[in-house]
Amino acid sequence: MTIEYDGTRFHGWQSQINALAVQDVVTAAIRKLTGEEEISLIGCSRTDTGVHAYGQVANFHTGSRIPADKFAYALNHLLPEDVVVRKSEEMYEGFHSRFSAKGKKYRYLIHNTQFPSALLQHRAYHTPYPMDFEKMHEAAAHFVGTHDFAAFQATGSNAKTTVRTVTEIRLDKNENTICMEIAGNGFLYNMVRIIAGTLVYVGMGKIAPEDIPSIIAGGDRTRAGITAPAHGLYLVEIYY
Amino acid sequence: MTIEYDGTRFHGWQSQINALAVQDVVTAAIRKLTGEEEISLIGCSRTDTGVHAYGQVANFHTGSRIPADKFAYALNHLLPEDVVVRKSEEMYEGFHSRFSAKGKKYRYLIHNTQFPSALLQHRAYHTPYPMDFEKMHEAAAHFVGTHDFAAFQATGSNAKTTVRTVTEIRLDKNENTICMEIAGNGFLYNMVRIIAGTLVYVGMGKIAPEDIPSIIAGGDRTRAGITAPAHGLYLVEIYY
Repeated sequence: MTIEYDGTRFHGWQSQINALAVQDVVTAAIRKLTGEEEISLIGCSRTDTGVHAYGQVANFHTGSRIPADKFAYALNHLLPEDVVVRKSEEMYEGFHSRFSAKGKKYRYLIHNTQFPSALLQHRAYHTPYPMDFEKMHEAAAHFVGTHDFAAFQATGSNAKTTVRTVTEIRLDKNENTICMEIAGNGFLYNMVRIIAGTLVYVGMGKIAPEDIPSIIAGGDRTRAGITAPAHGLYLVEIYY
Repeated sequence: MTIEYDGTRFHGWQSQINALAVQDVVTAAIRKLTGEEEISLIGCSRTDTGVHAYGQVANFHTGSRIPADKFAYALNHLLPEDVVVRKSEEMYEGFHSRFSAKGKKYRYLIHNTQFPSALLQHRAYHTPYPMDFEKMHEAAAHFVGTHDFAAFQATGSNAKTTVRTVTEIRLDKNENTICMEIAGNGFLYNMVRIIAGTLVYVGMGKIAPEDIPSIIAGGDRTRAGITAPAHGLYLVEIYY
């Protein structure tokens, strides 16, 4: 299933004790629909609290006779308005939303005005500091390629390898909103938010665009920028 | 003052009994800040329940010594997150947010996908019917100019004259979202929403683009399309 959600009121994708996760509401809807209590829903990306998704992908196994493509219709009647199943389809035997994924695309929105926006609250990171968009654009290009992104993961993470390939990064500016889109074969924990935060530092003049390669090569988290807040982040698409 | 708001939880701009209006929260913030209980806030546009604004304009008279441009900062500390004063400035004697206005620009968002969007709920009108964008574009052009828009006002309205000038109308499509922007010297009650609803009917093939001039000329509300819902409408800017 391809799932869209407004992450504002959820404690991320992944179920946890004493907090409402997107996985909980989708699992509950599937159980209600199929009557199968043992349904286990496997999401591709464990998005954090406040992170949004246009295209989360999750799979489950069912003995239900409901045609696969009809699940979307039926589940959307059972789901709250801030979670929508955009598509449901039968996959090949052995498909796994996480292990079968070949890559992902994320979007990060930065809103750059004097006061926070009423209409973009919870949807974009607001910063009042004027940003040098050209410098951010120049810096962004340095992230493309296969690099060791150790400097761009949350401290304390324990990924087996910190080498990842960024296939594309795009920066657009529309009035006061800067939109970053980044695609790659995989991302370390908080990697997109740290890249966004580093580009914000570049925009503010705290980091020079030409310093990005050495910050990547150095592998030192403290030389990169802040971890930009979760509510500006969108999981756009997962590639299979 | 130029005011942005997310209209979702408000019963429109105008104060009324037993319902929360944007005017109420802004007035309360000004009274708290200035200590002047008699403050009367005059908004330019009486937006309906659910309608959003990027650029509502409202004025008031005060004896406060707070510099005019500092009101925005101070009020934003007192206002809820879904109402933001984008700018505050001192105006000339006799300025009136409504009577001094020379024109307005509105935006209307139509989201055209199988299922409603989790992220655009309360922000765009969702319709699952595939729309013929080219026909909508062709139809839109007929609204530009000075016309008697009697067919495009809510029934029971009693405007002195129903002649208005539409100076510009733009239709853009971005993935599954159609954005209409319309500017003019003034709009009848529900006029923008009825024009949007009429374009939706054109998109669905219920009205032909070449019929628009005769629908305008006929002055018959029943020949135009539906009144598109409030939550797709944004007051973008007011011209002075």
